[in-house]
Amino acid sequence: MKKLINSVDSVLSESLLGFAAAHADIVTLARGLQFVRRRTLTPGKVALISGGGSGHEPLHTGFIGHGMLDAACPGQVFTSPTPDQMMAAAGEVDTGAGVLFIVKNYSGDMMNFHLAAEMLGREHATATVVVNDDVAVENSTYTTGRRGVAGTLLVERIVGAAAERGESLADLKALGDAVTKSTASMAVALTSCIVPAAGSPTFEIGADEMEIGVGIHGEPGRRRVKMAGADDIPAELAGAILRDLSLQRGQEVFLLVNGFGGTPVMELYVMVNAVNKVLAGAGVKAVRTLTGSYVTSMEMAGCSITVCTADAAMLELWDTPIHTAALRWGM
Amino acid sequence: MKKLINSVDSVLSESLLGFAAAHADIVTLARGLQFVRRRTLTPGKVALISGGGSGHEPLHTGFIGHGMLDAACPGQVFTSPTPDQMMAAAGEVDTGAGVLFIVKNYSGDMMNFHLAAEMLGREHATATVVVNDDVAVENSTYTTGRRGVAGTLLVERIVGAAAERGESLADLKALGDAVTKSTASMAVALTSCIVPAAGSPTFEIGADEMEIGVGIHGEPGRRRVKMAGADDIPAELAGAILRDLSLQRGQEVFLLVNGFGGTPVMELYVMVNAVNKVLAGAGVKAVRTLTGSYVTSMEMAGCSITVCTADAAMLELWDTPIHTAALRWGM
Repeated sequence: MKKLINSVDSVLSESLLGFAAAHADIVTLARGLQFVRRRTLTPGKVALISGGGSGHEPLHTGFIGHGMLDAACPGQVFTSPTPDQMMAAAGEVDTGAGVLFIVKNYSGDMMNFHLAAEMLGREHATATVVVNDDVAVENSTYTTGRRGVAGTLLVERIVGAAAERGESLADLKALGDAVTKSTASMAVALTSCIVPAAGSPTFEIGADEMEIGVGIHGEPGRRRVKMAGADDIPAELAGAILRDLSLQRGQEVFLLVNGFGGTPVMELYVMVNAVNKVLAGAGVKAVRTLTGSYVTSMEMAGCSITVCTADAAMLELWDTPIHTAALRWGM
Repeated sequence: MKKLINSVDSVLSESLLGFAAAHADIVTLARGLQFVRRRTLTPGKVALISGGGSGHEPLHTGFIGHGMLDAACPGQVFTSPTPDQMMAAAGEVDTGAGVLFIVKNYSGDMMNFHLAAEMLGREHATATVVVNDDVAVENSTYTTGRRGVAGTLLVERIVGAAAERGESLADLKALGDAVTKSTASMAVALTSCIVPAAGSPTFEIGADEMEIGVGIHGEPGRRRVKMAGADDIPAELAGAILRDLSLQRGQEVFLLVNGFGGTPVMELYVMVNAVNKVLAGAGVKAVRTLTGSYVTSMEMAGCSITVCTADAAMLELWDTPIHTAALRWGM
């Protein structure tokens, strides 16, 4: 295992220290690295908190800041954070309007966020949006139902923008559920990543193979196939997404082509070009395109495609100012 | 070779098509993909043009837009663009105030930008800033003198900001030379990338080795050593940089920790933390930190460290609004 780390035990804490130093204008570390929060809170705004296993950076810490999250609770690599992290975060960033948890659908995260919400029950108003955008498989290694993957970025951004406008906890919960319902993703992996504590690849894959429908922890997808050209991949991935969303001709969408951490930018744009051909064939138009490695599996090579139907209200929210480590515009 | 491409011959053109589609609000492709340019030019502003071999994305196309470049000429992977590309770009984006070429110091790029400037001589005022920030080695596989690497980002940004203010070609050339002189970089690689046309790794490296001082095309650096902990690497890299810049205690600097394309974000922040310890030991403070994979070698694992001395004027320029595919704030 070759990694730019000092030790398996310190990789998370040292990474958080580097992150907080690099983005000291936006974030601060809290309570012995239990969570990362915005440096400056907005009184009366609903607090958005997410979290999950580390190794998917910039998700979620890189999405803390104006127009997105208020806090994120990082677990160890691919390991759920604990309820006390979420409770500590909620206690610190709830300025009176309540807390919205945004949770990717994995059994450990679901259980721990649920426990935290229960224990916070008397003192804080809470609601939870569960993101389950991966259309590859129903149920998986770590889930009941669909996995929550790169579509989480869209949910956190659009709900985060609405939260800045002062919308209520109930309205934000409804918006988050609606965006989740409008979002579908599917992925392909060319290589496995290595979890530091494991020291060896999560899965073995041949030099001429790819895993269609892979999860963001390297969980198995639909099938293992021979490598294909870039144009052949979206035919299956985007095809499944378009069917899931029942998209009609003329629909405008957000498109996220997300690298898993080991994929060159050049290849991600080849995939954008390939996906656009499939969308054009279906009469669907990407009116906002985001390309980059935003929801990663450390150094895994491969990418995911996420499509979200874009109505005028969602586009307006998307375009409002945002200031986070990983996404920034308008301020 | 596993890559998300259709063919070696089409990877550049398809990547450019995807890039232009994703960022149609900022850029447009010109003249049969000869170059990428800003959609909207500012009359009377000096035009900044860069370029070089592809495979380093988002450099340079991702840096086109307000506050940075006006055009970029992409060569094939790790291959210089041709003089006709630069001449076509200059002819189209020079709005009367002249053209500043920003060139990384590689023999092919130097020759072709020089030829283009000569041939443009009568019709366009031109000047050239040569970036040579890599302190690892004097002369290299493709260079006479030091290589131009990730510090190019800082030069393009700071000079780009000054160009938006309407500064003259001579002043921008002087500023670019000054920023280059204030900037030093050094890198480490854990793995090689695969150039698509070659189909096999550029260099072989053992499972427990790293290349200290590697170039952005996988050129040899200073020496091949056994893998070390993250804290041991900046001691050598940042140490060499600090000596090169003769930094005094109390100096404020820009810090860029740049991934080569295959390095997890988590590890880059571990490196930020490690570099900050070396800087703190030298009494030097990073007042702006940029972390990410900005000047890449496709899927190479490893990172570079760039330090640039920051005076008040440069900080003010850095913080002005920028709107490119890869860097965006304030607008």
